[in-house]
Amino acid sequence: MVTTTWTRRHVLSLADFLPTEYDIVLQTAASFREVLSRRTKKVPTLQGQVVTTMFFEPSTRTRSSFELAAKRLSADALTFSPGSSSLTKGETILDTAKTYLAMGTDIMVIRHREAGVPHAVAAEMDRLGTGVGVLNAGDGQHEHPSQALLDLFTLCSLLDPENPRSQLLKDKKVAIVGDILHSRVARSNLWSLTASGVEVHLAAPPTLLPKLFAHTIKDERRQRLFLHWQVEPALQDADFVMTLRLQKERMGQHLLPSLREYHQHFGITRDRLQLCKPDVKVLHPGPVNRGVEISSDLMDDPALSLIQTQVTSGVAVRMALLYLMGGRSR
Amino acid sequence: MVTTTWTRRHVLSLADFLPTEYDIVLQTAASFREVLSRRTKKVPTLQGQVVTTMFFEPSTRTRSSFELAAKRLSADALTFSPGSSSLTKGETILDTAKTYLAMGTDIMVIRHREAGVPHAVAAEMDRLGTGVGVLNAGDGQHEHPSQALLDLFTLCSLLDPENPRSQLLKDKKVAIVGDILHSRVARSNLWSLTASGVEVHLAAPPTLLPKLFAHTIKDERRQRLFLHWQVEPALQDADFVMTLRLQKERMGQHLLPSLREYHQHFGITRDRLQLCKPDVKVLHPGPVNRGVEISSDLMDDPALSLIQTQVTSGVAVRMALLYLMGGRSR
Amino acid sequence: MVTTTWTRRHVLSLADFLPTEYDIVLQTAASFREVLSRRTKKVPTLQGQVVTTMFFEPSTRTRSSFELAAKRLSADALTFSPGSSSLTKGETILDTAKTYLAMGTDIMVIRHREAGVPHAVAAEMDRLGTGVGVLNAGDGQHEHPSQALLDLFTLCSLLDPENPRSQLLKDKKVAIVGDILHSRVARSNLWSLTASGVEVHLAAPPTLLPKLFAHTIKDERRQRLFLHWQVEPALQDADFVMTLRLQKERMGQHLLPSLREYHQHFGITRDRLQLCKPDVKVLHPGPVNRGVEISSDLMDDPALSLIQTQVTSGVAVRMALLYLMGGRSR
Repeated sequence: MVTTTWTRRHVLSLADFLPTEYDIVLQTAASFREVLSRRTKKVPTLQGQVVTTMFFEPSTRTRSSFELAAKRLSADALTFSPGSSSLTKGETILDTAKTYLAMGTDIMVIRHREAGVPHAVAAEMDRLGTGVGVLNAGDGQHEHPSQALLDLFTLCSLLDPENPRSQLLKDKKVAIVGDILHSRVARSNLWSLTASGVEVHLAAPPTLLPKLFAHTIKDERRQRLFLHWQVEPALQDADFVMTLRLQKERMGQHLLPSLREYHQHFGITRDRLQLCKPDVKVLHPGPVNRGVEISSDLMDDPALSLIQTQVTSGVAVRMALLYLMGGRSR
Repeated sequence: MVTTTWTRRHVLSLADFLPTEYDIVLQTAASFREVLSRRTKKVPTLQGQVVTTMFFEPSTRTRSSFELAAKRLSADALTFSPGSSSLTKGETILDTAKTYLAMGTDIMVIRHREAGVPHAVAAEMDRLGTGVGVLNAGDGQHEHPSQALLDLFTLCSLLDPENPRSQLLKDKKVAIVGDILHSRVARSNLWSLTASGVEVHLAAPPTLLPKLFAHTIKDERRQRLFLHWQVEPALQDADFVMTLRLQKERMGQHLLPSLREYHQHFGITRDRLQLCKPDVKVLHPGPVNRGVEISSDLMDDPALSLIQTQVTSGVAVRMALLYLMGGRSR
Repeated sequence: MVTTTWTRRHVLSLADFLPTEYDIVLQTAASFREVLSRRTKKVPTLQGQVVTTMFFEPSTRTRSSFELAAKRLSADALTFSPGSSSLTKGETILDTAKTYLAMGTDIMVIRHREAGVPHAVAAEMDRLGTGVGVLNAGDGQHEHPSQALLDLFTLCSLLDPENPRSQLLKDKKVAIVGDILHSRVARSNLWSLTASGVEVHLAAPPTLLPKLFAHTIKDERRQRLFLHWQVEPALQDADFVMTLRLQKERMGQHLLPSLREYHQHFGITRDRLQLCKPDVKVLHPGPVNRGVEISSDLMDDPALSLIQTQVTSGVAVRMALLYLMGGRSR
């Protein structure tokens, strides 16, 4: 395993991730994917360490993925569920984090509806000299690094299963279709894809893709970023199509006419995929609204959909991240 | 352990269970019961495998029993709780199952308020060639096989603790009393008991035991099935009395006059047990409404009640089922 | 480890705890604290045993602490969460406990809003001759023994980290400030502190500290107990200040004017601490209402606040209690 140059204690954002860091994650994840294919899918790497998932926003899927990753590294997984918690009793998030720190947490996996919460916790952990690592499992509309890393791992593993590395994606064209504006998945993917030399084409209705969006990206990367208000130019000759989950509550905010109309204009179907490269693959972070973001038959076609592979990649990539962060005891 | 002839990947229904299959479950459970009596109640059988409980209907008791069974086989137990889940986000049940499949689940334990859901998931897992086993932990008013198997294990173990086997029950008389119509426990027990040569007597108010009920049972077994609208003829000379949980919400549906009147006419009391064989025992799948299905003093009398034994049997039988299903890696 | 004289199966109340028992807990906890400082924070002591947490009152913090303690002793931790449970289905608490007993529970950790529930369960477990130990994790306004023991461990460890023992506190002055009337933490601390020869000074507004309060304490201990309706005399020359959580719902009951006024009169600040001994330390059981019970800056000052240490002590003390109770298999 290549871990010699990993120096990052927290994984909060991909904005400043270096190419070597992407490759370390990819190669570490590849070695853990091998572990997952064994009959006994467990290694003693983090035995006796504590990984605490703190999901202030409900999520079964991502939380299960992290918990399984932690268990397969033989860590103890603690779960903080604010529903029935001290938070309703007025405790601040930093105080909650410090409580779990004091219990002996080595790595905190944090999801929160407000952008910046994992960063604030990480800063506090550093200020206190704790050595605890914080992993951002989704903060508001800001970032969701482990999702983008598992997407990257899925793509690179498809191109070279033995030796996934980011440069495999150089000059590929990836279309990202959907609710870009509100998507932390899209934001994290922008960083990882442009860093890998991908040409990224965003497609969404104007209400979900403001022109200003591209301005958040630094100049040199912005050259590899293209915005479209129709789906077709984004799909044209694309190597991969990333679809994003549409949140139904956006319609109440007058950002969308109807799911049906969305599907008509931006839904990914077999027909639309004709515009792409012949061996195009479709991704989705899940959960999918069948027949909205993607047509139902396409979703179930293993020749076209990478959705299941993404979930499997997720466990391997999260094992890699927890392993690399390794907790304060390292 | 006798496992040579076990070929069943899923445990969905007892309708087609063979006598040898019942006996394999009983003997395997007996060997695990021995494990549970040790100081260290754990075996490494399913180490590194993942058992995911997916309870779309809330249940602490049955879920805990399965989780404990999984842990004692050294499996990793994942929990899907739809309350705070993707389901509220519009994902289909099959997609949820496929997500947990992709994470590496080996066995799925599924409860759902709709009959047939575990079957549908099992069919999809087979269609995909996954090797994953599905265990029906209760589907609507259809079946609850592990409950009937633990009841069978409880009865047979009472008759021969060393060597429980279904033929021990041949020509015994078992009364099943309560809300037959809505009970998946009763349905599964009908299959296991009639297969074991038991004479089954059902007793309930007419609203909870329609005449048509017996027609779902095949002819040869129907001969061992008797319906009663009073409790007394069912109890007469019975070897065992199985009581069923009365769901209070049925009263709102005008199926029941009142809990008090139900108890007066169908509640099992010491007096009523005089009608049975001298060493009669009473069962209940729990949770019990004290003083409704069973009088409170009777429930607490270990000479008459097998309720605690049923719970203990549950862990051993579920260990046996998980062991026999064994996951895709076998 | 000194465990030769430990004979207590349950930990329900500190009212009758003997000095030797306090010292056994302190010394056992000290040895487990050493385990927690290792890279692999795990011992096989309770392998294969089952610790079931039954929290009928929601609490993430205390439950996590117990679960972590159980896991670090290699026990299997079962969680009963009544929200989605059989209790809503009318089952009694004793029946729930007996169900978890029958599943193989060795130790039950119980929290309930009614005083006496853990005692009732313990009595039933004894009556049945089960050997199961019951630990009171907070019952109504009655007791919270593990909190008082971790407070004791925190104080004694500060005075002699190598050899914490209760006599270190002899003739120290401890102020307990806050909602004494409703606090099970205060009640348990009264027992442990007076047993250790501490002079205890209670301070609260009259509505939260009735004169009758002291009458619950036996005469010889009552001599070491002082009640104040202002905070200053309690703080005067105090060695330690224990603050209690203020529950905001008390204001609706006209027991408190406002949080602001409370802080003005009873909040612990740097200024007020000038009254105490120079090396005074402040404790709080958490979660803290910042700026109410304690000023925010004081809470974050490791030279003054022991709050984080208390949380860490909690895991060690709960490991010690679970170890000493040891389950029925011992």
